[in-house]
Amino acid sequence: MYIGSNIFLSGDALHNCILGKRVLIVTDQQVSDLYLKIILSALDKYEVQVLILQAGEDHKNFAAVSKIIDALVAERHDRESTLLSLGGGIIGDLTGFAASIYMRGMHWIQVPTTLLAQVDAAIGGKTGCNYAGLKNLLGTFYQPSAVIIDSIFLDSISTREFTAGIAEVIKYGMACDGEFFLWIEKHILQLKQRDNLVILEAITRCCRIKLRLVEIDEHDHGPRMALNFGHTFAHALESATKFKFYLHGEAVAIGMLLATHLAVKLGYIENSIYLRLEKILSCLALPLQVDLSLYSVDELFKFMLQDKKNSGSGINMILPCAVGEVKVLKVYELDFIEELLKDYVSP
Amino acid sequence: MYIGSNIFLSGDALHNCILGKRVLIVTDQQVSDLYLKIILSALDKYEVQVLILQAGEDHKNFAAVSKIIDALVAERHDRESTLLSLGGGIIGDLTGFAASIYMRGMHWIQVPTTLLAQVDAAIGGKTGCNYAGLKNLLGTFYQPSAVIIDSIFLDSISTREFTAGIAEVIKYGMACDGEFFLWIEKHILQLKQRDNLVILEAITRCCRIKLRLVEIDEHDHGPRMALNFGHTFAHALESATKFKFYLHGEAVAIGMLLATHLAVKLGYIENSIYLRLEKILSCLALPLQVDLSLYSVDELFKFMLQDKKNSGSGINMILPCAVGEVKVLKVYELDFIEELLKDYVSP
Repeated sequence: MYIGSNIFLSGDALHNCILGKRVLIVTDQQVSDLYLKIILSALDKYEVQVLILQAGEDHKNFAAVSKIIDALVAERHDRESTLLSLGGGIIGDLTGFAASIYMRGMHWIQVPTTLLAQVDAAIGGKTGCNYAGLKNLLGTFYQPSAVIIDSIFLDSISTREFTAGIAEVIKYGMACDGEFFLWIEKHILQLKQRDNLVILEAITRCCRIKLRLVEIDEHDHGPRMALNFGHTFAHALESATKFKFYLHGEAVAIGMLLATHLAVKLGYIENSIYLRLEKILSCLALPLQVDLSLYSVDELFKFMLQDKKNSGSGINMILPCAVGEVKVLKVYELDFIEELLKDYVSP
Repeated sequence: MYIGSNIFLSGDALHNCILGKRVLIVTDQQVSDLYLKIILSALDKYEVQVLILQAGEDHKNFAAVSKIIDALVAERHDRESTLLSLGGGIIGDLTGFAASIYMRGMHWIQVPTTLLAQVDAAIGGKTGCNYAGLKNLLGTFYQPSAVIIDSIFLDSISTREFTAGIAEVIKYGMACDGEFFLWIEKHILQLKQRDNLVILEAITRCCRIKLRLVEIDEHDHGPRMALNFGHTFAHALESATKFKFYLHGEAVAIGMLLATHLAVKLGYIENSIYLRLEKILSCLALPLQVDLSLYSVDELFKFMLQDKKNSGSGINMILPCAVGEVKVLKVYELDFIEELLKDYVSP
């Protein structure tokens, strides 16, 4: 893993990671317009093809995975070629999924270009696509051969996208590392103002936490589940709005508040912790309200029941029990959750 | 792993392997007509659904994998359900592939019903489907939670299918275990006559060899490649005849002879070994000639170049260097191979 600024200019980081002489780059139009030239000139000694996919959650489907496979077949790429994903979490998930199933697995390098992908999506080897309207229903656990994180890419992302990424940074603090949460509280304005050194520190700390969890629990049955904090609600919010309304990090921000509210109601934590989380998210001007003009509580609930983190008849909830610590609660009394949800969102 | 006769009658073997209370059985019409009742009565305490796929290599495509996924979605199966594949290698490969990508991996039990699947396909976790006319182009390495091998299923398979399965048994001897090859030479008639104890011994020895190789080389980069003996040619033969003419084991029989002929020409082994292999395959009345009325040498060669075992510009060939031992040869001088192939098939 490489983390730094302008590490693409020399090309060394890339060369160290590529297998063979042939590379297929998968990216989207926007990222391609901004950065493809830099990457191509760093790869001038390789035979490079480029596939441009449509951006957006709407296109995160198996048809997109097929496009990658078709491009690999058309150019007769084999297990000595390298797939390189250049983009946000969606491009990375789709490309990693294709890499994991093409010839039962080929070499794959992740180059995440959004904050959210740099701190979360690009690390840990979860790949996938949506199916039948369900988020990441298909996918694999497949580790990239290398992840190259360059903060230069963050210069071009919008405030909205950047802020949504910070929501995931906050997740790491709240779910896994109380000391890191304090650090975020202290540096929230510098983060918001995109201070490069503070950003690199935040990225490095998130990656360190994630790598540790992936190492001890790659398949997400134990400690890694902490990183799903806020995600049961977030996935329901995204599904209920057909992935059109929220950025993933925005849905996670609301999801973290809902989960924390639930933890307060269950007596796991004091309300002051909820208020600290709310305060830090408010600093970022993230949307924090469940918006009943967009979906009903019933709808949210329906999607929560379909979440793949569930098992058997209950819902698996990741709830904070302290700052920097969560526990997994298997909830069978669904009426109770539904009531709390209604209670929370009604004025 | 369970190997035995009539082990389904009690149901215990099955019960020990199932996770949760819900099972989706994937099978084909023929197997279903013969055995579904036995399996269902052994599973009377579970909530069971059945999906019947079309049989045959022609239907081993991603559309079939999608049918399994759709059935899982329709019944809201989650990570606490069990997928059970009941059939030959194709049903197993398709079901295993679906199991490996649904929610990034669910519980899966293999119940192979053909000899070929019992000695080879069902063990080792190679899953997949054909794509763009290329055999197993898509797939994963994903281990079943259990494999249940019951020789009762072999009672109903045709002589042709059974004999093709023995070709894979011979492969284990020739590629991995010289002592086993001698045993096969001694017992070839009993195998052909389906002596149950001899069959169980052969299955057990094949499984033991395969499990050992999978344990040390799951991803098929090293010692496990020995099991691809005969397969570079076999896949080309199957592709060139659009998977309609040969059973897989039949193509492997011809492929082993071609590879062994090549090894003789290269001076790796003496011709007497070729003759021993030819003799044992002839006992089984397997088709052993390359049939130029069905395809040309050029066509075969084109498909060999597309084989996913290749890397870079060469062809990876698995060639015998003794009875029970092979080596991997990366061949760059393709003209040479093509010439040998032409030389071999012309009368």
